[in-house]
Amino acid sequence: MNTTLEHDLNALRAVAPLVHNITNYVVMNYSANALLAVGASPVMAHAIEEVEEMAGIAGALVINIGTLSAPWVQAMKLAMKKAADLGKPIVLDPVGAGATHYRNTVLAELLETAPPAVIRGNASEILALAGLGGQTKGVDSTASSMSSLDAAHALSERFGCVVSVSGAIDVIVQKDRVSYVENGHPLMTKVTGMGCSASAIAGAFCAVQPDSFLAAATAAATMGVCGQLAFSKATAPGSFQIAFLDALFELTSEKLVELARVR
Amino acid sequence: MNTTLEHDLNALRAVAPLVHNITNYVVMNYSANALLAVGASPVMAHAIEEVEEMAGIAGALVINIGTLSAPWVQAMKLAMKKAADLGKPIVLDPVGAGATHYRNTVLAELLETAPPAVIRGNASEILALAGLGGQTKGVDSTASSMSSLDAAHALSERFGCVVSVSGAIDVIVQKDRVSYVENGHPLMTKVTGMGCSASAIAGAFCAVQPDSFLAAATAAATMGVCGQLAFSKATAPGSFQIAFLDALFELTSEKLVELARVR
Amino acid sequence: MNTTLEHDLNALRAVAPLVHNITNYVVMNYSANALLAVGASPVMAHAIEEVEEMAGIAGALVINIGTLSAPWVQAMKLAMKKAADLGKPIVLDPVGAGATHYRNTVLAELLETAPPAVIRGNASEILALAGLGGQTKGVDSTASSMSSLDAAHALSERFGCVVSVSGAIDVIVQKDRVSYVENGHPLMTKVTGMGCSASAIAGAFCAVQPDSFLAAATAAATMGVCGQLAFSKATAPGSFQIAFLDALFELTSEKLVELARVR
Repeated sequence: MNTTLEHDLNALRAVAPLVHNITNYVVMNYSANALLAVGASPVMAHAIEEVEEMAGIAGALVINIGTLSAPWVQAMKLAMKKAADLGKPIVLDPVGAGATHYRNTVLAELLETAPPAVIRGNASEILALAGLGGQTKGVDSTASSMSSLDAAHALSERFGCVVSVSGAIDVIVQKDRVSYVENGHPLMTKVTGMGCSASAIAGAFCAVQPDSFLAAATAAATMGVCGQLAFSKATAPGSFQIAFLDALFELTSEKLVELARVR
Repeated sequence: MNTTLEHDLNALRAVAPLVHNITNYVVMNYSANALLAVGASPVMAHAIEEVEEMAGIAGALVINIGTLSAPWVQAMKLAMKKAADLGKPIVLDPVGAGATHYRNTVLAELLETAPPAVIRGNASEILALAGLGGQTKGVDSTASSMSSLDAAHALSERFGCVVSVSGAIDVIVQKDRVSYVENGHPLMTKVTGMGCSASAIAGAFCAVQPDSFLAAATAAATMGVCGQLAFSKATAPGSFQIAFLDALFELTSEKLVELARVR
Repeated sequence: MNTTLEHDLNALRAVAPLVHNITNYVVMNYSANALLAVGASPVMAHAIEEVEEMAGIAGALVINIGTLSAPWVQAMKLAMKKAADLGKPIVLDPVGAGATHYRNTVLAELLETAPPAVIRGNASEILALAGLGGQTKGVDSTASSMSSLDAAHALSERFGCVVSVSGAIDVIVQKDRVSYVENGHPLMTKVTGMGCSASAIAGAFCAVQPDSFLAAATAAATMGVCGQLAFSKATAPGSFQIAFLDALFELTSEKLVELARVR
């Protein structure tokens, strides 16, 4: 995995891939700053008149339903169809899956529209998405990532995609491949948009690493390592979110390899 | 009041209430981070397809018209009606009341749709909402909170709700009850979304304190005390807004009781 | 220029002009905070029901197409027409010009609707807007500001406006007037919304300085000087964006005159 981590981060910085985000209002600023800090080039665009063209020039598409509404869902579908046609990787973040019927319905439609390369969510969302129950409290998880292992496998089988579950231990699944990332810090759950940024950064790595399973693991390790580095600077969520952006920017591939606990 | 302050903050941390926000684009991120930092669980959702369900699972509903538009107003009404039906507390933030006819019309409609537990605004907004004139400069206040006392009383009578007016001295009114909170710092007016976060946090306290008058006072004291704590760390608005989130997270009920000046 | 810099900043603080922004979701919070920090009063409003009234009470209108969609474009046109009728200065930020056909079409329509006082963009955007080619990578520039000098002159001639091109050296053009601002820091390109804030602040200065060419130069110098001051405090993008807001707040006209390199 060390070679992969090193390759992926260096490639991301060399290519600075354009990542097209159709994401929620709450996290747009933070996700854009996270992408810029790690070395990618973010663009947010949701107009039905331009999403296909934008998806066409981007290296990856990130779909996040955090503050969904009908016109945005229409744009998501157009962009996903286009990205799929062009063979561009799609990352889907099923924010709040299970919280309302509307989210569940939209997620089913999106998954039917085009197969994502990676689904990244918390355990509650993955459980809900797999139809295996699980209680979602708004957009926060009430289950552990390990408890969602079966759900992740089921989703991976059904949609032929990587499933990345964030939690105390991140679990990344693709068919018979499983990877565990034991990095990160609990304070990350006290900053809004950390999960959404994890999805955006997974998109950036998918743009430079064709094996989406490896890209998802590198993304999870990058997030987790930077969470730890940030906590060494700041122990409350305001200053922590700022230290986290700094850590993404200052992260070297050597540091990533040294601190990543991927197995 | 000390027992209330202690109870409310401890209850908020114990329950971590889900607060459903239909709020403006400018402050969504900061309000969500403020809610997380103080110990609540924020969710932002505005689709007409899901707002009723979301209001149903939340402990409180916060309505903020900062960047209103017709589809959002429709969602606000649906959510308010549902929350009222279920007896969930509603906090209404009349951002920019008096600045345009549209805002005034929408506010009248919202107040007719469902009675809020708390109206929280600055003095200009409260004066405008009460139809007692007052000049609003966009979304910033040009009047003092004390000058709006009559307006606050009039609104409280008319809608049977608590009216919380932010200013150098916060004034909280409900029928014949009045409370003054002499905390806070002028630098809070140099950070966007401070008032909106005050409303969001009032929602969180209403979810755990059935007496909305007390909840509004605790919220005002919490905001003000954290403003003072933040200013002891940071004297310019960029670092101040970050220190404020840190203060919300680090605030103990002992500290709140010690520093709160509520009468 | 020193007299202008001193006058403009002092006037901005004395007047605290209301700046009406119809801007993109990503930067709304940061732009509002930048305007507050420098001493202006921001308002974000995009509803077709109120944009004309809001433009009427504001000192300047800032139009930014970063996350455009059809209803927002309609509101932009209404607001621009009203501002033009009332002789209020308009700043247009053509975010992502050249990235999609939709952006190009909308920009052509907006420019036909009402003449802006200032067009402010990066070199790629200015080249695209002038129809002189240039490659836009999403919303980031791939050209140098100096290379866009001809494009800036062409645009200025065609629309009778000031064109302000951000880059390592900012270039401000109006007919036969040219000004160069050699301030700033490369780290500014690693924070989302820096360009958008430059446009918002140009709007604030246009509200207090009737010569838009001078206002645009003061705005560019203010941004650049604060970028340098911020970098003296913070060398990674998270803490840098916060230090930048602090610098805007703490900037004195003496400091601005001392550090500005305008010719």
